[in-house]
Amino acid sequence: MTQPARPPPVRRLLVIGIGAGDPALMTMQAAEAVAALDVVLLVDKGEHGQDLADVRQEILRRHGRRPPARSIELRDGTRDPALAYDEAVARWHGERVVAFERALRDEVADGETAGILVWGDPSLYDSTLRIVDQVVERGNVDVQHTVIPGVSSLQLLAARHRIPLNRIGRAVHITTGRLLRQGLPPGVDDAVVMLDAAVSFTTLVGEGFEIFWGASLGTPDELLVAGPLDDVADQIVALRAQARARLGWVFDIYLLRRLERA
Amino acid sequence: MTQPARPPPVRRLLVIGIGAGDPALMTMQAAEAVAALDVVLLVDKGEHGQDLADVRQEILRRHGRRPPARSIELRDGTRDPALAYDEAVARWHGERVVAFERALRDEVADGETAGILVWGDPSLYDSTLRIVDQVVERGNVDVQHTVIPGVSSLQLLAARHRIPLNRIGRAVHITTGRLLRQGLPPGVDDAVVMLDAAVSFTTLVGEGFEIFWGASLGTPDELLVAGPLDDVADQIVALRAQARARLGWVFDIYLLRRLERA
Repeated sequence: MTQPARPPPVRRLLVIGIGAGDPALMTMQAAEAVAALDVVLLVDKGEHGQDLADVRQEILRRHGRRPPARSIELRDGTRDPALAYDEAVARWHGERVVAFERALRDEVADGETAGILVWGDPSLYDSTLRIVDQVVERGNVDVQHTVIPGVSSLQLLAARHRIPLNRIGRAVHITTGRLLRQGLPPGVDDAVVMLDAAVSFTTLVGEGFEIFWGASLGTPDELLVAGPLDDVADQIVALRAQARARLGWVFDIYLLRRLERA
Repeated sequence: MTQPARPPPVRRLLVIGIGAGDPALMTMQAAEAVAALDVVLLVDKGEHGQDLADVRQEILRRHGRRPPARSIELRDGTRDPALAYDEAVARWHGERVVAFERALRDEVADGETAGILVWGDPSLYDSTLRIVDQVVERGNVDVQHTVIPGVSSLQLLAARHRIPLNRIGRAVHITTGRLLRQGLPPGVDDAVVMLDAAVSFTTLVGEGFEIFWGASLGTPDELLVAGPLDDVADQIVALRAQARARLGWVFDIYLLRRLERA
């Protein structure tokens, strides 16, 4: 019998959820994945200041191999403010696909393992997996990818407020600030809102909600506020503006829960 | 100046999300929390067979202190089949609150740390935090609790299928099998379904959905199926029944995504 031909070595790509904020939120599996990396692809939209980059470096120091993996920085173009939102996102996606493909082809050898460290978990409001799918579809570089899940800000928000996200036997909606401004779907009484740059919860003041809000979760700058929305909305708006002024950006997330009618 | 009075030592309670299935999905923080426990409260509804108990024991072996923490088993009564669902749940809740309170009062000394290991993460469809809140409200035992977030089956499902849960800029609904049978709210096109003991996805065959399904995620028995719902529904029903017959129970979760109309 002849030996079966050994398949040609391919580049491995690990998309690693590193947890939301605190390096201690990394899983054992994510730490092992970081230790296996030959190359780290550093992806940064540039708007998250130094904090995020520092946490990533800390994680690579703690868990990365010695000597350190090679780091390849993928720089994004800036969004053209003249373009409509969807068009701007599409162009930015396209540029990143090309940058990824080039980095994998030119900077990662066959048989090597590259990795991307994703804040929180790659399953919610993160573009990495869509970009990787497009790289794979284009077929210009042979890459096999694996996703390592992480603790997302969704779980961290709930943990800090010590609440379940759902009420007994009820649903939870995960949505964006942009969609919240169009109103919650009928029958949705519990919604987690992400990607809200415009304090969209203020549009629901007077509508009978309570809010569980968190910003900079898992970091030393963490902020938490909970209470009836009508009572705490102004406080959250002020705290958020202060944090943004001090840190240069702010990541926040919140649960809105419709109060039961008395 | 007199020294301020030292506050009386209280019992600490750590509600620890241990990740979904694979002990490698534990976070560093959860491992540290397990190492800090004097007492482990073992909560089991009894329906999850030996697998779950084995993972928990493995986690205590790997991360628990030496000599091992004391283990206190909280046994539930069985649900009275004559009661309506809501009534049965309420009664079961009440019994568990009393069992928790008794264990914390009688088995945990002031200044000691007790812990509960929660499968996945305590924020979704888990009763632990509601029970702890009721113990605190009753005021019969002084306890301070902290929640350690974990990787939930939500993230693990997405990771295994290598997909984001949301489409770009869109919402994701998290719901139960029971609610799914009443129909998705208008405008909801992406829904993760948990707690579905009755293959409720079959009610949507012919309605233009694709499904990303997983069972026993993170364990050696893991099953994954993805495809147009109309094509794979029968296969999932059969695989689920086989797994249930073989393992005695099955935990599954799935994403339903409405296909874009052509």
